[in-house]
Amino acid sequence: MAQKRGLLLVMTGASGVGKGTIRQELEKIEDYHYSISWTTRESRPGEEHGVHYFFKTRDEFESEIHSGLGFLEHAEFVGNYYGTPRAAVEEQLQMGRNVLLEIEVQGAMQVKQAMPEAILIFIMPPSLTELKNRLVGRATESLEKIEKRLAKARSEILMAHEFKYCVLNDDVSRAVEDIRAIIRAERLSALRLTEEELEVIVQQ
Amino acid sequence: MAQKRGLLLVMTGASGVGKGTIRQELEKIEDYHYSISWTTRESRPGEEHGVHYFFKTRDEFESEIHSGLGFLEHAEFVGNYYGTPRAAVEEQLQMGRNVLLEIEVQGAMQVKQAMPEAILIFIMPPSLTELKNRLVGRATESLEKIEKRLAKARSEILMAHEFKYCVLNDDVSRAVEDIRAIIRAERLSALRLTEEELEVIVQQ
Repeated sequence: MAQKRGLLLVMTGASGVGKGTIRQELEKIEDYHYSISWTTRESRPGEEHGVHYFFKTRDEFESEIHSGLGFLEHAEFVGNYYGTPRAAVEEQLQMGRNVLLEIEVQGAMQVKQAMPEAILIFIMPPSLTELKNRLVGRATESLEKIEKRLAKARSEILMAHEFKYCVLNDDVSRAVEDIRAIIRAERLSALRLTEEELEVIVQQ
Repeated sequence: MAQKRGLLLVMTGASGVGKGTIRQELEKIEDYHYSISWTTRESRPGEEHGVHYFFKTRDEFESEIHSGLGFLEHAEFVGNYYGTPRAAVEEQLQMGRNVLLEIEVQGAMQVKQAMPEAILIFIMPPSLTELKNRLVGRATESLEKIEKRLAKARSEILMAHEFKYCVLNDDVSRAVEDIRAIIRAERLSALRLTEEELEVIVQQ
């Protein structure tokens, strides 16, 4: 029987909502391929090629946009490209492996367009105040920039119906268990049954 | 905030596939309202009104069809009515309680028509041979009747894509855990988020 296609999980949500922490906990207990983005920006101290990003030239990136399988999502920020190349994701899915993307909301919407099978999971903060506290706690950005992020988070929260699932991150381990339940349930989706599998059951 | 509506779970599948056993295990660990069917047939020894069925007169049943909230599904077999009255189910859902129906495939399809929010879970036997063994093991029916059931089961399995989820019952406790994951994931469906809930998050 052909290998059953993996699930494409897209975890998204505001900056500071805890996507990274959830992913780190999840990867201790669930087997999936984590898709690493391409970027044309310079690597920062401590960042490794193939771990944090694949660092590419503009030529390489643009050639993938136009001639390769393209990107599931990509965008240009401040003169640099960022994106999720389609080929690697497709290869893993075809091998039957689940793939997880951890990306911004705009990118998640692009993935949904490119691959309607994608399972969009929106990570929700308990409140905007709590999100603000987390961003301020990180102390990596100016208050002005944080306020901009919060305004963006607000509008994203109000469009939560666009996603398939919504997981509240008020407790990381509960959020991780929620995502595991989503993965288990999605594997049971009747849409994933192949004619071949049904035939095997009725022939035996 | 208004009480969040419960989930309407419809467990269906062939006779002998183990729906009843799964339900009994499930109700030890999950809280839900089990909807008891109405019937106009005579009660059999050991059957209790309000436990196995609500035993009704034809007049009562027909009056509910035509004047009450009606039935989510009903059918007539050998001169007797069987059905799931809508009012009790609706009341529990509005109270925020999950409701479980355990019904035949045809009835499940009627429920899907009547209430598109219904979550149809098809219980799949490991194989038709295994299903036959279970039915023969029960020793309650003639071989001829069993063969008819198997032919029906075969056609139902081949329409498995009509359901939302498909749970293989080769191991009862795994099947129960599968259904628990479905319930957990369905609670996280973004479609269930109310505008009110989103407002609370962005206002705080």
